[in-house]
Amino acid sequence: MCELLGMECNVPTDIVFSFSGLRQRGGRTGPHADGWGLAFYDGPAARVFLEPTAAAESPLARFLSENPIKTMLAVGHVRRRTRGPTCLSNTHPFVRELWGRHFVYAHNGTLRKVRRRPLGRFAPIGTTDSEYAFCYLLESLRARFQDYPRKVSDLWRAVAEIGAEIGADGSFNFLLGDGRHLFARCATRLHYIIRKTPFGLARLKDDDVQVDFSTVTTPRDRVAIVATLPLTVDEAWVQGQPGELWVFDGGALRATLPSGR
Amino acid sequence: MCELLGMECNVPTDIVFSFSGLRQRGGRTGPHADGWGLAFYDGPAARVFLEPTAAAESPLARFLSENPIKTMLAVGHVRRRTRGPTCLSNTHPFVRELWGRHFVYAHNGTLRKVRRRPLGRFAPIGTTDSEYAFCYLLESLRARFQDYPRKVSDLWRAVAEIGAEIGADGSFNFLLGDGRHLFARCATRLHYIIRKTPFGLARLKDDDVQVDFSTVTTPRDRVAIVATLPLTVDEAWVQGQPGELWVFDGGALRATLPSGR
Repeated sequence: MCELLGMECNVPTDIVFSFSGLRQRGGRTGPHADGWGLAFYDGPAARVFLEPTAAAESPLARFLSENPIKTMLAVGHVRRRTRGPTCLSNTHPFVRELWGRHFVYAHNGTLRKVRRRPLGRFAPIGTTDSEYAFCYLLESLRARFQDYPRKVSDLWRAVAEIGAEIGADGSFNFLLGDGRHLFARCATRLHYIIRKTPFGLARLKDDDVQVDFSTVTTPRDRVAIVATLPLTVDEAWVQGQPGELWVFDGGALRATLPSGR
Repeated sequence: MCELLGMECNVPTDIVFSFSGLRQRGGRTGPHADGWGLAFYDGPAARVFLEPTAAAESPLARFLSENPIKTMLAVGHVRRRTRGPTCLSNTHPFVRELWGRHFVYAHNGTLRKVRRRPLGRFAPIGTTDSEYAFCYLLESLRARFQDYPRKVSDLWRAVAEIGAEIGADGSFNFLLGDGRHLFARCATRLHYIIRKTPFGLARLKDDDVQVDFSTVTTPRDRVAIVATLPLTVDEAWVQGQPGELWVFDGGALRATLPSGR
């Protein structure tokens, strides 16, 4: 199993605080020591930092904590491998280009039956079920829309439907970014929180760090954070229901759609 | 204009020495201050570090110099923009998946007429001619081969032919990695060197650094380095002829193919 971390905001925000918590679970407070990755969008393009090693011990992960990159949309992952060896090509998040933009994806769970699904123009580079499912998801989107849908709710519904379809193959908790939205599907465990005015104090569960968000924000800032398990102890995280897809845009939850079971 | 850097070896090697020289040209000894990128392969997958800022001043570029990543194949670039604004989506090298492996590409030159060429399944994310040409190149490969060619010389010839075709649209110096080969096409300026036994001393042109390679290598190591301009002062770099494609594999020049003019 693995842990997911997503952030989607209405102003460029750094993810250091949340990533510091997640990073500890990558080998220190959690067993997810088989790789980590963090993707930062800048418009339709993303850059991704990946390492097939434990985040807790990683100089690169520490560098990112000390040199924060501001972004409106980020997707992160720490991996405890279940299927597929520990190597770069099996490290989440995965990235592909579709409709002239990067799609970034990370998965938590096991999809034992996903390989019976035929693929199209996207091929896995590594050997994980996770990446296979991503390739199938993108091919399904491509087959439905020739270009990025003008009516974005069509895209939301498509992601929910394809998520439900793949969800039948096992456990499919995932995060998906498209440069604008953060999609988050709960199969078993997923939580979110929206930080907005009035901002308060938050303390990490996994590290001796606290932040008073009121000192680093303006009243119009909104930041949505999604994580497998709550990252802080003194905030009210919303727990996902199995088979629910959340759509975040502008730091707000725009929709909760049914997405199978 | 920009500067290119490629490395292809028969043993995992760090690129720090060469990158240190290139990095200085990113805003200090050279004017290429509009972004930089460095891709490292690990098998068929690559991870790419990108910044739309000057490499000479970049904490991330310094981090990579201080925390070397060993690889058999690397592609780097420092950018001085000619067409397309300075932003992440216009920062080389560019990456796409084809045949279940990453292709990594960087370009030096301007291709004023490339946009008349129709694209297929690969779409540019940014606004550069360079990325457009990459999409066209990959689509052309995909149209010729259903999968990674078993006879690799078929692939070599295809890259040379497509390089010649795109080369007619302007100036097309490029580096292309496929996880195994480094392809390097010279349109105007490109140089290479093979470092092999007996290894000697090399001094960077752009920085006060020298390395005695005999102390960090074994007799069977072979490292090919390709760069727009020679990076060292005391080695014999081979200058490319316009319209020549080099193919490196195992730290050796496997072929020099005609590739237009």
